[in-house]
Amino acid sequence: MVRTAKEMGVNHYENMRGGKLAVDAAKFLEAEESYGAGSFFGRAVIPPGGSIGYHQHTGEYEIYYILEGTAKVVDDGEERILCPGDMMQCRDGSSHSIENVGDKELVFLAMVLYNHNQQ
Amino acid sequence: MVRTAKEMGVNHYENMRGGKLAVDAAKFLEAEESYGAGSFFGRAVIPPGGSIGYHQHTGEYEIYYILEGTAKVVDDGEERILCPGDMMQCRDGSSHSIENVGDKELVFLAMVLYNHNQQ
Repeated sequence: MVRTAKEMGVNHYENMRGGKLAVDAAKFLEAEESYGAGSFFGRAVIPPGGSIGYHQHTGEYEIYYILEGTAKVVDDGEERILCPGDMMQCRDGSSHSIENVGDKELVFLAMVLYNHNQQ
Repeated sequence: MVRTAKEMGVNHYENMRGGKLAVDAAKFLEAEESYGAGSFFGRAVIPPGGSIGYHQHTGEYEIYYILEGTAKVVDDGEERILCPGDMMQCRDGSSHSIENVGDKELVFLAMVLYNHNQQ
């Protein structure tokens, strides 16, 4: 199955998880196409100054893979600066946030996958 | 957990799955870090003229998300040209291949996830 970038509908989220400004997210895979692997598979765009607020994942985890721009992430309280090609994993039970601290769009892939090891 | 691009070791595969030339793949997440979700999470680079040969996935599926370059994929016999931002999913039981048909490096994310819906 092929899905081109143009075929991915964009959803707009204001103040996501209590963050600043807004996030535009395009799903490259629908959750129901993931064979039970996870609940979100998307490409997210945050404008300069925007963010997704600090939030926890339970029974699941999230991967951010940076494509463009400069991100400040908080990973269970620890701040890091991420550049294109860098990855963060918010592990099951941990909390994280992401903020665009550059002067261009921050573009990244975000995937929420279930913890398949839990009882 | 943060892993920068520089911290991802690169593995070199010649004639992968019977394909042409070689593939360099850097794992952004190790399989054992994926909470049982899948077996491969990487960034792959194929030089012009290179390819990964046609192969089947059983009990699992694979996602290719194109980052740079131009790919010709075959998805269960159907040829498509993919550009940056495009995605292909080789579904459980299907076969696929990917070839760099451009004049620059083809860069894409590849993820092999298990079919969690099967009995």
